[in-house]
Amino acid sequence: MFTIDHLGIAVKSLGAAKSIYEKLGMRVSPEETVAAEKVRLVMVPVGESRLELLEATSEDSTIAKFIAKRGEGLHHVCMRVPDLPGAVQRLKQDGVRLVSEEIKVGAGGHRYVFVHPASTGGVLLELVDSSH
Amino acid sequence: MFTIDHLGIAVKSLGAAKSIYEKLGMRVSPEETVAAEKVRLVMVPVGESRLELLEATSEDSTIAKFIAKRGEGLHHVCMRVPDLPGAVQRLKQDGVRLVSEEIKVGAGGHRYVFVHPASTGGVLLELVDSSH
Repeated sequence: MFTIDHLGIAVKSLGAAKSIYEKLGMRVSPEETVAAEKVRLVMVPVGESRLELLEATSEDSTIAKFIAKRGEGLHHVCMRVPDLPGAVQRLKQDGVRLVSEEIKVGAGGHRYVFVHPASTGGVLLELVDSSH
Repeated sequence: MFTIDHLGIAVKSLGAAKSIYEKLGMRVSPEETVAAEKVRLVMVPVGESRLELLEATSEDSTIAKFIAKRGEGLHHVCMRVPDLPGAVQRLKQDGVRLVSEEIKVGAGGHRYVFVHPASTGGVLLELVDSSH
């Protein structure tokens, strides 16, 4: 089963960015800091998916660099896919450009891989296992 | 009920952009032209949501201008919201910047409004009625 797990959105200010969703009557999670990624974030559940609003806590964080180059906006789309290892193998055989060649293991043990925007029409696409 | 209706993604080539989803084993709709918007598009269903890949058919289409300015990538996020008229009224009262002040009616009769990226952390946010 394919689903959109979350949209990662790089913002300058969590307070400003989240207010639109609060005004719409949506639930916004408390702010949370992920030190390893140098970001503060809130999650906004949307049906089976979530918006992940990301604010940099340091000028050398990936999110700060992204905003400096591209401005605020969508940073990545995360999609759940069945059989992640099989999918990654097929993509590699077909010459799809991945950000890293190997499946990585993130916080909480979830497995993920990023497909380069050059292979997706400009969208940094994170794939995670839908069985997780 | 809030859900993500679709993500609109501006691409230079439908053929190139859709292939990653085909390689993942996803269903991609036949190509369709929307003359009024000067785009060709394919839809990729993802759970309760869809990816909408958009290729310009003319240099003066919104999508061509977007790509010229920003490059390929996410053009808009469309979210279903309950009670669209009520939501729009609240947003206007709260000073949220909308692209147009009135709810518009699109092809097929669906009602929609766009929230300006300045009010959402850089994302052009389309709101449609979840009852439709």
